[in-house]
Amino acid sequence: MTHRIVVQKYGGSSVADVEKIRGVARRVVATVDQGLAVVVVVSAMGSTTDELLTRAKEISPSPSRRELDMLLSCGERSSMALLSMAIQELGHQAISLTGSQSGIITNSRHSGARIIDVRPFRVQDELEDGKVVIVAGFQGVSYKREVTTLGRGGSDTTAVALAGALSAEYCEICSDVDGIYSADPRVVDTAGLIEAISHDQMLELASHGAKVLHAESVEFARRTGIALWARATNGDGSGTRIDQQDKVPEGEPVTGVAGQRSLVRLRAQVSQSMDHMLGVAAEASLPVLHFDADHEIADLWFSPADVPDWPSVREALLGKVEIEEGCGAVSVVGEFFGRNASKLVRARSVAAGAGIVIKAMATSPLRATLFCNEDDVDALTRALHRAFREG
Amino acid sequence: MTHRIVVQKYGGSSVADVEKIRGVARRVVATVDQGLAVVVVVSAMGSTTDELLTRAKEISPSPSRRELDMLLSCGERSSMALLSMAIQELGHQAISLTGSQSGIITNSRHSGARIIDVRPFRVQDELEDGKVVIVAGFQGVSYKREVTTLGRGGSDTTAVALAGALSAEYCEICSDVDGIYSADPRVVDTAGLIEAISHDQMLELASHGAKVLHAESVEFARRTGIALWARATNGDGSGTRIDQQDKVPEGEPVTGVAGQRSLVRLRAQVSQSMDHMLGVAAEASLPVLHFDADHEIADLWFSPADVPDWPSVREALLGKVEIEEGCGAVSVVGEFFGRNASKLVRARSVAAGAGIVIKAMATSPLRATLFCNEDDVDALTRALHRAFREG
Repeated sequence: MTHRIVVQKYGGSSVADVEKIRGVARRVVATVDQGLAVVVVVSAMGSTTDELLTRAKEISPSPSRRELDMLLSCGERSSMALLSMAIQELGHQAISLTGSQSGIITNSRHSGARIIDVRPFRVQDELEDGKVVIVAGFQGVSYKREVTTLGRGGSDTTAVALAGALSAEYCEICSDVDGIYSADPRVVDTAGLIEAISHDQMLELASHGAKVLHAESVEFARRTGIALWARATNGDGSGTRIDQQDKVPEGEPVTGVAGQRSLVRLRAQVSQSMDHMLGVAAEASLPVLHFDADHEIADLWFSPADVPDWPSVREALLGKVEIEEGCGAVSVVGEFFGRNASKLVRARSVAAGAGIVIKAMATSPLRATLFCNEDDVDALTRALHRAFREG
Repeated sequence: MTHRIVVQKYGGSSVADVEKIRGVARRVVATVDQGLAVVVVVSAMGSTTDELLTRAKEISPSPSRRELDMLLSCGERSSMALLSMAIQELGHQAISLTGSQSGIITNSRHSGARIIDVRPFRVQDELEDGKVVIVAGFQGVSYKREVTTLGRGGSDTTAVALAGALSAEYCEICSDVDGIYSADPRVVDTAGLIEAISHDQMLELASHGAKVLHAESVEFARRTGIALWARATNGDGSGTRIDQQDKVPEGEPVTGVAGQRSLVRLRAQVSQSMDHMLGVAAEASLPVLHFDADHEIADLWFSPADVPDWPSVREALLGKVEIEEGCGAVSVVGEFFGRNASKLVRARSVAAGAGIVIKAMATSPLRATLFCNEDDVDALTRALHRAFREG
């Protein structure tokens, strides 16, 4: 492969109607005209997925995941075929490929499959032929040749995984947001655009509430060393670069603050119910946000939105462990923030000053997370952003 | 395979909304409850295909056929997944399979592919597992593993081809029409339901304007000896049986009358332009309805609706041959009707009595076709039905 390859991913709002699809086609062609070979990953058009889901729910309150995947995979198929036609209309060669045709191999966990391999031979052939290759995001094929759909943020993951397998120069994640901000601008009006951030810090932000990129896609980029750009589809092209640590210039001591709502804390007696709690959590593939235990009490924090069938998992835990719902968390991410004891002390005092009760606190080298009531998340985000990013 | 298998095909209007899909699910389950293994072939929901086509045409006046196939195949995928969920809701096992998963192998002619082989191993496995198998009509996979869509009436052909490959007891084609009539009831108010008809006669009717079944699907049934039922999805279950000649009781001397509009006659000089005309016709895979030639003049009749890109084929013929558009034809089908000279004479005199100019006439053993102006088709249909079927 002699070409320089880039991967561009466009979200659902960027291909919501025929006019927007034409705009994306022009943006793709502008990149081709720079001499780059372009692979485009698209999501389903606007509300298509929700409409299909509504129909499914009308038929069955809990439809089979396998059939749901068959249904939902249609969303991307129509947007990619339409985008391919729009690029051809501009006089360029283009071809759309399903997840299966693109070699996106997943495990067989329907409606939440994980990419286990990428075999992009067909994509490479079509690029060699001078075509723009448009790939259906969010879908793959299991080793049993079943159609699967990925978990939330799946189209981002498709794009980054393909970029890695193709050794692309970079992968652009295009949406209606023009980059990563130091906090959610709807909550913090002084939040600023981050110009560059390391994979590691981005992974912390994405895992703890930042919305623009999904944590799994950042993790793929980190492993393969692919540079990401988070950009607006209709923007001036600046955006945020997410790259390896040594390629990111040193910026603010604190990069960003992210908040999460609707968290759940499970609390178990170490001597009696902890094993049951962890057993249920493991069986449900419940993604642990934070776990700690002393000799008496074990706490497990997670987001039920990430648990495919939370009501039945909840059922299995009821009466065995304490379930505290309606929790929240605010995380501060910055280089070695979590290792700096004086900053951790200051974070607690900022919360106290704002009159917010902190239920628990947890750190990683790059992050400190303060758990609270979900109603306090916005106020705590503002207070911590003011203290550490604006201070 | 020890099960008795039946194949049921439901058209787009039968699965147009969630309520109708539930109705189809109940009908399928009623068949399962009779101890039969059921394979269901579905079309796209109601106007889905037209909506997708409209979007494509907004983007490109002549979209690539390959991308159009990718787009249009979504229609059946959503209806089959929803039907599968609806059957599961009724407590039965069901699984939906794409054309590719069902082993519907086609040539690679996009937007008009022909089934060249059926390898229903997966369908058989799932039936053995006690499942209702729902197959996407109208689509297949080429030997290059590209998604293809079949020509008009493709879902019927999928159903009949699968019935043949599975040695099904019969194949039911369910629609909003309750069977095959002796003429179009919208044109002839005395038209009656045909109880049984041979494959051969049905093929003649379908090839010459009868709408309920597509000729290609009847041809598949004829070759494999599969009995077809044309029935209403919401009906009393009577309908029309289409079967091998020796299984059909002798009925009326004339079975039915069918009309066609928008036909084209090409006329060429045998000495000069005939080879050109046939060359263009062959290259365009133009389906010849009727061809005759004497030593001076050759006439070729066909329906431009069956020609994928008629405007450009027309362009290639202009100035070289005479093109007469706006023609029509009415065919009378009955056992040995075309071999009975006195009936042919009477057909001409019926037309003359109705004041209709006959441009040409052609016969097969089971049929006589009278070519006329398309504006005369309805009047000629009524006159011939009155003379031969009611007389």
